[in-house]
Amino acid sequence: MRELFQQELREVQDRLVEISTLVEASISNATRAFAESDVKLAEQVITDDTKIDELTVSLDELAINILARQQPVARDLRIVVSALRISASLERMGDMSEHIAQLTRYRFPEKVIPKQLRTIFGEMGKLDIEVARNLTILLRTEDVKVAEQIRIDDDKMDELHQSVFDKVLGDSWKGGAEDTVDATLASRYHERFADHAVSIAKKVQYLATGDWQVGYIGH
Amino acid sequence: MRELFQQELREVQDRLVEISTLVEASISNATRAFAESDVKLAEQVITDDTKIDELTVSLDELAINILARQQPVARDLRIVVSALRISASLERMGDMSEHIAQLTRYRFPEKVIPKQLRTIFGEMGKLDIEVARNLTILLRTEDVKVAEQIRIDDDKMDELHQSVFDKVLGDSWKGGAEDTVDATLASRYHERFADHAVSIAKKVQYLATGDWQVGYIGH
Repeated sequence: MRELFQQELREVQDRLVEISTLVEASISNATRAFAESDVKLAEQVITDDTKIDELTVSLDELAINILARQQPVARDLRIVVSALRISASLERMGDMSEHIAQLTRYRFPEKVIPKQLRTIFGEMGKLDIEVARNLTILLRTEDVKVAEQIRIDDDKMDELHQSVFDKVLGDSWKGGAEDTVDATLASRYHERFADHAVSIAKKVQYLATGDWQVGYIGH
Repeated sequence: MRELFQQELREVQDRLVEISTLVEASISNATRAFAESDVKLAEQVITDDTKIDELTVSLDELAINILARQQPVARDLRIVVSALRISASLERMGDMSEHIAQLTRYRFPEKVIPKQLRTIFGEMGKLDIEVARNLTILLRTEDVKVAEQIRIDDDKMDELHQSVFDKVLGDSWKGGAEDTVDATLASRYHERFADHAVSIAKKVQYLATGDWQVGYIGH
């Protein structure tokens, strides 16, 4: 029984890694589509998000099944409950990529972001791709040092998010209302993407260290 | 054992209703603070959100405890797992109220929203308060007709959200970049608030009817 349970937990972990890998691809494609106004790639991101949603639903089914059959307690129970929460956050990260892709599609053939902000959004995209890549590594290895890196990147993201507003609200801003709306939304999506990664990282860190307070607060 | 379990489920339900009631107060206060640039009330909303967060953490602890001690299966298991998800959504709804309050505080003593949009945001606020009120009723009564009303209100909210963008991107828009940023964010927060309510309503509806497809897709 115990051995079967361990095997099932590995299956859960493998599936989380699989979803995280897809999220990595989605933010990478969304960022490129956004920077290059590549509407085809944007549509690809939107279509691919269905796959992430399906895998999430199927993982949740597996987790609920494990709860029903194995009736885990203590740490084992918390691992399975955490998996449910991690999958919910991964699903939302996929949604953020999809939203960024949707912005690209709405504005096509115009570019979404005016020149003044291209550097900042380039950095945001790079940072979110790094966050996603590290998240996949973290889910595979449970290496808490990687969790720390995700937090550091999220702090950088918060600074970039603030700097978007500084630009948009500054005297030198030349964008129209459309540019302002797009910048506001795109910046918010990037920032939320990293937030979800931090919330997952906390859960993994909690599971690895048993330090309940670290992992629990904040869904 | 069975009776104790039923009693514990009622306790879970009571706590969800309690949190939902606080969310109702928070969106109601946030909407008023936003409309009247009442910075004191805005700060109250921000402070009160801590209470919602604490109650959510404590409810989640209870749910995990029930899973460990009662080892529910089938429908009972799904009820407890759904409670975990519902509490996560309620917590996010509280965050949306808090974000609306934060916008009010940032802009004080200026009003957040320019005249041109006051009617629309007034309607959004009223709609979100109604959604929250119905959510509390739904959680208490499990009356699926109320779930339907929440969906209808969410559709109206989506229309209002779209109409904000129509205004902001229209020729008659006189707002500056700051107004555009605020309108974009506030509209998004209102819209997300209602989205979370719909996602909760689907879960309650699923539990009441057993129709898995209704309740499950979308976290």
